[in-house]
Amino acid sequence: MAKEKKVEQITDMDVDFTQWFTDVCLKAELVDYSGIKGLFILRPYGYAIWENIMSYLDRRFKELGHENVSMPMLIPESLLQKEKDHVEGFAPECGWVTVGGGEELPERLAIRPTSETLFCDHWSHVVHSWRDLPMKYNQWCSVLRWEKTTRPFLRGREFLWQEGHTLHATAEEAIAETEQMLEVYADCAEKLLAMPVVRGVKTDKEKFAGAERTYTIECMMHDHKALQSGTSHYFGDGFARAFGIAFSDRENRQQTPHETSWGVSTRIIGGLIMTHGDNNGLVLPPEVAPIQVVVVPVAQHKPGVLDKAAEVYECLRAAGIRAKLDDSDNSLGWKCAQWEMKGVPLRLELGPRDIEAGQCVAVRRDDFEKVTVSLEALTDRVPELLAAVQQGLFDKAKRNLDSHIFEAHSLEEARSLQEQNGGFIKTMWCGELDCELAMKEQAGMTSRCIPFRQERLGDVCACCGKPAKHMIYWGVAY
Amino acid sequence: MAKEKKVEQITDMDVDFTQWFTDVCLKAELVDYSGIKGLFILRPYGYAIWENIMSYLDRRFKELGHENVSMPMLIPESLLQKEKDHVEGFAPECGWVTVGGGEELPERLAIRPTSETLFCDHWSHVVHSWRDLPMKYNQWCSVLRWEKTTRPFLRGREFLWQEGHTLHATAEEAIAETEQMLEVYADCAEKLLAMPVVRGVKTDKEKFAGAERTYTIECMMHDHKALQSGTSHYFGDGFARAFGIAFSDRENRQQTPHETSWGVSTRIIGGLIMTHGDNNGLVLPPEVAPIQVVVVPVAQHKPGVLDKAAEVYECLRAAGIRAKLDDSDNSLGWKCAQWEMKGVPLRLELGPRDIEAGQCVAVRRDDFEKVTVSLEALTDRVPELLAAVQQGLFDKAKRNLDSHIFEAHSLEEARSLQEQNGGFIKTMWCGELDCELAMKEQAGMTSRCIPFRQERLGDVCACCGKPAKHMIYWGVAY
Repeated sequence: MAKEKKVEQITDMDVDFTQWFTDVCLKAELVDYSGIKGLFILRPYGYAIWENIMSYLDRRFKELGHENVSMPMLIPESLLQKEKDHVEGFAPECGWVTVGGGEELPERLAIRPTSETLFCDHWSHVVHSWRDLPMKYNQWCSVLRWEKTTRPFLRGREFLWQEGHTLHATAEEAIAETEQMLEVYADCAEKLLAMPVVRGVKTDKEKFAGAERTYTIECMMHDHKALQSGTSHYFGDGFARAFGIAFSDRENRQQTPHETSWGVSTRIIGGLIMTHGDNNGLVLPPEVAPIQVVVVPVAQHKPGVLDKAAEVYECLRAAGIRAKLDDSDNSLGWKCAQWEMKGVPLRLELGPRDIEAGQCVAVRRDDFEKVTVSLEALTDRVPELLAAVQQGLFDKAKRNLDSHIFEAHSLEEARSLQEQNGGFIKTMWCGELDCELAMKEQAGMTSRCIPFRQERLGDVCACCGKPAKHMIYWGVAY
Repeated sequence: MAKEKKVEQITDMDVDFTQWFTDVCLKAELVDYSGIKGLFILRPYGYAIWENIMSYLDRRFKELGHENVSMPMLIPESLLQKEKDHVEGFAPECGWVTVGGGEELPERLAIRPTSETLFCDHWSHVVHSWRDLPMKYNQWCSVLRWEKTTRPFLRGREFLWQEGHTLHATAEEAIAETEQMLEVYADCAEKLLAMPVVRGVKTDKEKFAGAERTYTIECMMHDHKALQSGTSHYFGDGFARAFGIAFSDRENRQQTPHETSWGVSTRIIGGLIMTHGDNNGLVLPPEVAPIQVVVVPVAQHKPGVLDKAAEVYECLRAAGIRAKLDDSDNSLGWKCAQWEMKGVPLRLELGPRDIEAGQCVAVRRDDFEKVTVSLEALTDRVPELLAAVQQGLFDKAKRNLDSHIFEAHSLEEARSLQEQNGGFIKTMWCGELDCELAMKEQAGMTSRCIPFRQERLGDVCACCGKPAKHMIYWGVAY
């Protein structure tokens, strides 16, 4: 016999959160390294999480009238250069194809770091009249950005994402689209992933290259650092002018349309791990979990146990629950540890005595609470327990967020609060870049966003003392 | 008012089939050209067809126990070189990334032309024991091959596809997998796309670079040329040895596993167009059509017409039919021509007199037959009509295939039959490369496949007169 696999230990998250994260990514079999730095393999379990996120978002996008398309993966250098701010932001981190079919290419081709230029080039050919608007497109693909430091999910040179691109007759309509898509992202984070968010606007310094305005959802991780988890951008008519997109309106006058884009990437899976995970590994909210319930037979060699476990499994599947039966020949201890590592929200244990009593034992992954469930009530009780885990995870994350937002009235106070507690530090801000840079240099924090829900904490900027324009959140971000 | 769009003409398919194909691709708004030769934009209507194909195949793959993963888009040159036949086949047509993040890379990176090397490299890290087998993976992605001549769908430098890769303990199991996946492809072609297929094995000359055996489904286009529409490959243990993949079996002996791969690409959409299309444009089988039924109001300015049309539309949607209501202000003639161009299987026309009579007029896209349908019986009759269109298209394509398979007993006869009729020419064959090359040089045909359903047409090879090993199909292929 081959030796049975050992249950592998992971680093204590309170000792080394970074190493804990990497351990979870590998031991829960979400990713593997490839031969190229920053290009990760999404293994079946990791990709299945992404499939559930895609499925949620794709449905929402389509309900709102968006259509999927596929743009090329390569962008000619001259096309990338058409919008000045955009090329400055992205060209330095591009991967360049210089040889194709054995020959040096006449022009370098960038692997797409994002596809605004491709969508705009296409629209410049196909948009002519007000009848052609709005264009509401999305694509699912991967993009490449040559990052220096890389980590699974959080910062890859290649990552999977969706990029929505829309074109509208008016600025108002484009802004409404940008705000609407941010709400879809907030729903995805909160309802699917049980990750509470702060909605807001990015500062000019932090906005997307070429955008007039960038909206963001910011999440707080277990270690009280911030993760930008989804963004939507309003471009005004800058790209449209640069690419010569125009349409004749109902009065046959030439007009320039207004553009948006918005994206969520596999990065959000990094956020999912760091929001809910614990020292036993991954913890998945049931809504996004590839396996919602694992059925683990106890003393499975005893007559009738495996049959009954299979029956329970079939019953769950028939009720539309994503269930798995672990009838492998691994030990009970190993099975439990493995499914805990993989973050399966609910484990049902079923042994000879349970069967006799017509019940099983449900173990919640979030708080390890054990509940006896009558087999007769299985398809009522299991969905209730899954809903309870989903809500429990959201509530816990919300408490973590709410208890780690601190108010400061000076840069020094902000620095000190961050040092002691981490989290979001909220201050008033004058809106000037200088103060943003000072906060970065002196307190090690970047602006996370100007929240939609503004509070008046005072009249003056915490950094310079000049009149304040906004309340802003600062933090240390992934 | 902006001028109404004109209904655009397409080239007659009997005059210039190649130009007809390009016209349909563009006028039905399936694709657009990008700034780079051979990289096409899949527009919403073209991508929606691909989504339906993906949805069918993904469901079938998962039912058979396959899991989706995501591998990197780049392959280090050294990794691509590990399997000799494979690199010889693919390296000449690779696109190479030589610069990343502003710096010359120490090693060139190929954009994946196919991912056998990546899967094998990964497996060499994670496969240890018989417990880890089989590995049954699939990925949905795009690949790049630097083709010289390019055409939408049929030959792109970048194309979308799925690539399945599996690893098995035994050769028998791997071969069974290869054959099983070919059956899934045949089902996809015949049941979803109404494209009858010939199943068979590729000759050594035509098999995939590095494979021991390649299975194929071959379809016949309207112009009687062949299209290879899906392939599955059995690799034996060649890749596994080259990449050092080994596992310990139940008796703890080291063994080398056996590998398969299989793929279907957007090329099959080219086949779909060329199988069913006509001089009015695209013709789509209902099973794969993004819009199965379009509701077109007649005299829509008259009171009650648009309301009733909307009601009919809602009724179809509620019945799970992919319906569209064309309530635009285009003329009736333009609407009908547009939806014919887009190949919508069924058009429902509804005017004031129809409404009075409680009926509508259904026009089939395949044969333009008009049927009066009572509105009360709508949700019974429409699915029946859609099923009839699906079957009608398959039957017509099957007649085209069956009536264009010709038997020849000499190379000269084969050449002459191909010249007169096109289609598949079946002959006996000795199995030697020389005769295959002679058929190519002297009759302009490549071997399409050695069909699973063998017939004994004689004892000797049609080319050389030596004893025959197989019956083989020859043809002119896309």
